Amino acid sequence: MTSNDHGTEDRLDNDAVAELYEIANSIYDQLSAGKVPKMVIPLRTKSNIRFDPKLGVWKYGKAAGARSAKKTKGAQMLLRTMYVLEFIEDMIAQNKSSTLREMYYISEGWGKGKFSSQDESNLLAEDLEIVTKCMREDFKLRPEENGASVIGNLVLTERDRKGKVKKINCLDDVGDSGYGIPYNVEKDKIRLVESDAKFVLAIETGGMFDRLVENGFEEGAGALLVHLKGQPARSTRRFIKRLNEEMKLPVLSFTDGDPWSFRIHASLAYGAIKTAHLSEYLATPTAEFIGISASDILNYELPTDKLNDKDIQALNAEKTDPRFKDEFWKHEIDLMLEIGKKAEQQALAKYGLDYVTDTYLPEKLTELGIMK
Amino acid sequence: MTSNDHGTEDRLDNDAVAELYEIANSIYDQLSAGKVPKMVIPLRTKSNIRFDPKLGVWKYGKAAGARSAKKTKGAQMLLRTMYVLEFIEDMIAQNKSSTLREMYYISEGWGKGKFSSQDESNLLAEDLEIVTKCMREDFKLRPEENGASVIGNLVLTERDRKGKVKKINCLDDVGDSGYGIPYNVEKDKIRLVESDAKFVLAIETGGMFDRLVENGFEEGAGALLVHLKGQPARSTRRFIKRLNEEMKLPVLSFTDGDPWSFRIHASLAYGAIKTAHLSEYLATPTAEFIGISASDILNYELPTDKLNDKDIQALNAEKTDPRFKDEFWKHEIDLMLEIGKKAEQQALAKYGLDYVTDTYLPEKLTELGIMK
Repeated sequence: MTSNDHGTEDRLDNDAVAELYEIANSIYDQLSAGKVPKMVIPLRTKSNIRFDPKLGVWKYGKAAGARSAKKTKGAQMLLRTMYVLEFIEDMIAQNKSSTLREMYYISEGWGKGKFSSQDESNLLAEDLEIVTKCMREDFKLRPEENGASVIGNLVLTERDRKGKVKKINCLDDVGDSGYGIPYNVEKDKIRLVESDAKFVLAIETGGMFDRLVENGFEEGAGALLVHLKGQPARSTRRFIKRLNEEMKLPVLSFTDGDPWSFRIHASLAYGAIKTAHLSEYLATPTAEFIGISASDILNYELPTDKLNDKDIQALNAEKTDPRFKDEFWKHEIDLMLEIGKKAEQQALAKYGLDYVTDTYLPEKLTELGIMK
Repeated sequence: MTSNDHGTEDRLDNDAVAELYEIANSIYDQLSAGKVPKMVIPLRTKSNIRFDPKLGVWKYGKAAGARSAKKTKGAQMLLRTMYVLEFIEDMIAQNKSSTLREMYYISEGWGKGKFSSQDESNLLAEDLEIVTKCMREDFKLRPEENGASVIGNLVLTERDRKGKVKKINCLDDVGDSGYGIPYNVEKDKIRLVESDAKFVLAIETGGMFDRLVENGFEEGAGALLVHLKGQPARSTRRFIKRLNEEMKLPVLSFTDGDPWSFRIHASLAYGAIKTAHLSEYLATPTAEFIGISASDILNYELPTDKLNDKDIQALNAEKTDPRFKDEFWKHEIDLMLEIGKKAEQQALAKYGLDYVTDTYLPEKLTELGIMK
């Protein structure tokens, strides 16, 4: 994927290799010209994300830092980069992949290029994404695990590790735990074939996912239920984005009512700060929040817990987060601070096990015009 | 399941109901006889677990405490118990289930019987298991989530939430994320049909699970790979136990090398302290540890991290844990304390991405006579 094709096109492995060569060439050219080599990289901070009105997502702004070989630390970082480039090239050639952690351990053999902490190897992987505009997955660097799953009337094909293409109906062909979303959901791996669902419901907790499944909500309401497993992994966000773009399905996030859950929605809808360089690829700007809000806590008289210091801190931080700048979020964040309370999505069980599927969700979905 | 049938028999819902009636009857009888009612329950502490030589697992000993209505707290607990019994009876009648968290919220309507914290509802669910010798699953109280998965040549049938029976081959019919183990793996739900696998490999981390899958270890070595997702959920342990008992497959746990991972193996093989009343049902006493040991750290010269204070504390606690009383564990725990280091299973990547499947596991499996 390059920044021009809006995250919907496939990217071939050799494109990724070409981008990596470009980095190596740039370092080589700087050295040949007698310059101290450096890599320039955008600052990855909350203050350096900007709304991209064309794409409707938040991306990095212009503030940048340099990894220069002038200092020992920068020089080591560049040396590591070279080792990593070679490692990735080898993996692509051998059709292998590796976790970031494995790469960290493999660096044991890189002499002075050895990573001194896992953070360093994670950071470098992000750097490479940002500089090349490729994704970690293109470099065959995969996340530790996903574990998210989907249930609903969706047919897809997955090309498995041995190259065999399997057609899977995420309602009929899977057990009650659903179809497990793999860590790579690009088009060479997953093709979305068909679905008669009306919307995608992204659910924070396993307890609520199982509740909706037990209550048959996916069939009754025509929903694709996606279990986010807390803060959603990149492949989960990408998968949801593809459902939104390719199947034209509206996306709704259904989370707990606390500052951390607001962030889950933000990363799904607007992009996460750590992956703002990939926002147009991972975020679903039209996603709507139907999780527990501060207003819901009052309107539905939900059982609550008191906000702790960390919650209050997080809410205050959200007040300066550009992703939460609209009226809805301003109001809800202030209200939550005012009432000093949070609530879990399962708190709806106060009114019985069917309340969420008989009352709460239909009310919210009708409000949004998705259910009649 | 009763304690007599060694955890292999199905249990019908009405057996669970009968056991619950027995509790209610006992309280009623005590009240009728003019006594202050109480429930007697074994102490759930490390010092009160005993090895059951017949079953080969660790179970609760004779030390017991009483929940008596003499004190307000005990009386409240008994009141709650009555409400819970009614709630469970209703669920069984309606073919519903609930998470422990949902039950906690439902107790909002129970007046003085309302739980004041989630811990209380969890504890009560455990009490009921211990007293009735049924499992939480029999009471329709289900865990928050599982998320564990299996890949390998195993055919099973799953009766889904709508009663439809699906036949699934955990190699051919699933994507690369494998078959998701549901929260209920009892015989009314899951039947194990056939497998030509030679052993079950229970793997702690997702990164290592994906490594073995990418390297094709499940087919090359004839393994059923189970991803534990850290400390394994009850259904994962039960599923592994069934593979061991019904398919006669040896079970090996492959974990990181630190005190927490030793506990993962212990709960899989010997039983967990919190669920010692169900050990004969959840534990696989013949399971062998082929995770990273302190000796492996030295023999394979693995990259390590320093033990922190909590690690050292945990290792010292294990020295008084009866489950770690044999020579192997005594030696390995002392050695780890001596070298002051721990290592992750992915540290094997120091020698390349194939080292674990080409060298480490074959060496360990040959030692155990499972591979030739």
